[in-house]
Amino acid sequence: MSTTATFTNPETKPHALIASDRVEGTLVRRPGREKIGKIERLMIDKISGSVAYAVLSFGGFLGIGEKHLPIPWSKLKFDRVMQSYEVDISDEELAKAPSYAADKDFDWGDRSQEQQVHDFYKARPYWGI
Amino acid sequence: MSTTATFTNPETKPHALIASDRVEGTLVRRPGREKIGKIERLMIDKISGSVAYAVLSFGGFLGIGEKHLPIPWSKLKFDRVMQSYEVDISDEELAKAPSYAADKDFDWGDRSQEQQVHDFYKARPYWGI
Repeated sequence: MSTTATFTNPETKPHALIASDRVEGTLVRRPGREKIGKIERLMIDKISGSVAYAVLSFGGFLGIGEKHLPIPWSKLKFDRVMQSYEVDISDEELAKAPSYAADKDFDWGDRSQEQQVHDFYKARPYWGI
Repeated sequence: MSTTATFTNPETKPHALIASDRVEGTLVRRPGREKIGKIERLMIDKISGSVAYAVLSFGGFLGIGEKHLPIPWSKLKFDRVMQSYEVDISDEELAKAPSYAADKDFDWGDRSQEQQVHDFYKARPYWGI
């Protein structure tokens, strides 16, 4: 088979795929463009290879008091103009959303907690039930 | 709903999810444990949220002559003992596998090229046909 490829600049040509290290660190805004935080990392289902969550970090100062929020991937919209993700979430919802301190970790193995996250965002579980 | 969670250490408790920034930089070995390179990044389908490829970087010196190989996610096995990914690929296959220079980019938008990659690894296309 051919090993030559048509090389293109990933920055200029839109395509269906995005690099994980480009998602990490990307700003997250509300529909009104107000910045609420940034994407810390993606959480990936090892077996299926589905992105289960984007972890939004927000609040705190110099890492102190920072909160991490797992958000189902399907709830993030990319805004090409602002080059950031848009999540439609109010202050009230942000306060109530399942979250954990940045220096701790969410119990990813606990499906009932994961179900709570998906219920909160009215998202379809990535584990397909 | 409850915002309290059972906090656990992600390093000690195995779970079904893995963080994107933990995959990036992870070594890739052959079944014989010989190191062949490392995972540079993941390429994710924006709409479905499926990990389409892990990009393996190998060869070169100080970034010069380095090659990038898109490998279907399903072809990577995680070796808990070695804490690295295992890919069963010979030198001959490595030389023939679809790749691109590290300072260029693969044309991710070209499905026929993507089909070639999947044919090469005998992997099921992530776009589900």
